[in-house]
Amino acid sequence: MSSAAPLGRGPKVRAAVLAATVDELSEHGYAAFTVDNVAQRAGVHKTTVYRRWSDRDALIADALAESIEAEIPIPDTGSVEDDLRALARSLVVWISSPSGRAVLAVMLANVAGQPAPPDTTRHAFRDRIRKALPVVTRAVERGELPADTNPVELIKTLVAPIYFRALITGESVDDRTADAAAAVAMTAARAGLFG
Amino acid sequence: MSSAAPLGRGPKVRAAVLAATVDELSEHGYAAFTVDNVAQRAGVHKTTVYRRWSDRDALIADALAESIEAEIPIPDTGSVEDDLRALARSLVVWISSPSGRAVLAVMLANVAGQPAPPDTTRHAFRDRIRKALPVVTRAVERGELPADTNPVELIKTLVAPIYFRALITGESVDDRTADAAAAVAMTAARAGLFG
Repeated sequence: MSSAAPLGRGPKVRAAVLAATVDELSEHGYAAFTVDNVAQRAGVHKTTVYRRWSDRDALIADALAESIEAEIPIPDTGSVEDDLRALARSLVVWISSPSGRAVLAVMLANVAGQPAPPDTTRHAFRDRIRKALPVVTRAVERGELPADTNPVELIKTLVAPIYFRALITGESVDDRTADAAAAVAMTAARAGLFG
Repeated sequence: MSSAAPLGRGPKVRAAVLAATVDELSEHGYAAFTVDNVAQRAGVHKTTVYRRWSDRDALIADALAESIEAEIPIPDTGSVEDDLRALARSLVVWISSPSGRAVLAVMLANVAGQPAPPDTTRHAFRDRIRKALPVVTRAVERGELPADTNPVELIKTLVAPIYFRALITGESVDDRTADAAAAVAMTAARAGLFG
């Protein structure tokens, strides 16, 4: 494993192993997922992986959270309309990407009663919703939305149509999908429906 | 198979086989699904099944469509608000029921890259959305909604938050979820966002 030497320690190992985890999930799914394959793909020894992650599900949980966090940044433009559009547009890009599909496949395997890490991905999703809440609370502070707006309800209303199209009806989603979802969420928020 | 004799022909056979199909999917999933098991559960001979359905995927497609059609009726109360609430409330009941979970598990197995009948369930969903469209077109005719309201967009906006909670965040859904979804869809429609 001489090629693994430069990756022996530090944040690069972590990044390489997490990226390899998403790639493995993307290509082979959860059922065929092994730490051996991830280690080989990342060019590290298996013990290096186990030193950082207790088991494959802990590794997957970390990789999914990292993928979501890196690819759906939380915007802060100063305008809630722009923030919601940016958030929805990042989600559209991510959900259509190989890593987004990999994350969703793991999560949906769970719902579908197939082998899957228990609730791992749902935690990742809930965490991302939680981190998006300041988009709403900042808008309330700026007086752009009613003071009693429930941020969780608003963010769920924003993202739901994108997940619905990507997963249930199987449509392709794009910036127009994102902007329409943002317009619906804004209109409902201004009408006080999330109070 | 003497117990199968009364089910030898007629609409009762069809109903029994379709119900057995949903029950089998619900209990054992698509991967373990066989026409043999369905026939046994329904108390009919396998050849009786094959006389009506060409293969297991045709049988599943029919069973899923039937489950959705029976459990999510299309309302016509004379008021679009009441119709949308009724539609959302039926969806909430169905999505939380064993047969709803079975239908979704089959569909999501497909998305998750697990063995699944190709696109069968998506057809069933699209068909149900299509059949719900008169709720919107009747409302437009009654002058309750803007003349250029796109019925497909409105219905998708109505149902998306219910699917999102049931499948992605894993929350339980109830009448309040349904009514909130109906209020958001109505407000967006009246604001002309589906034009």
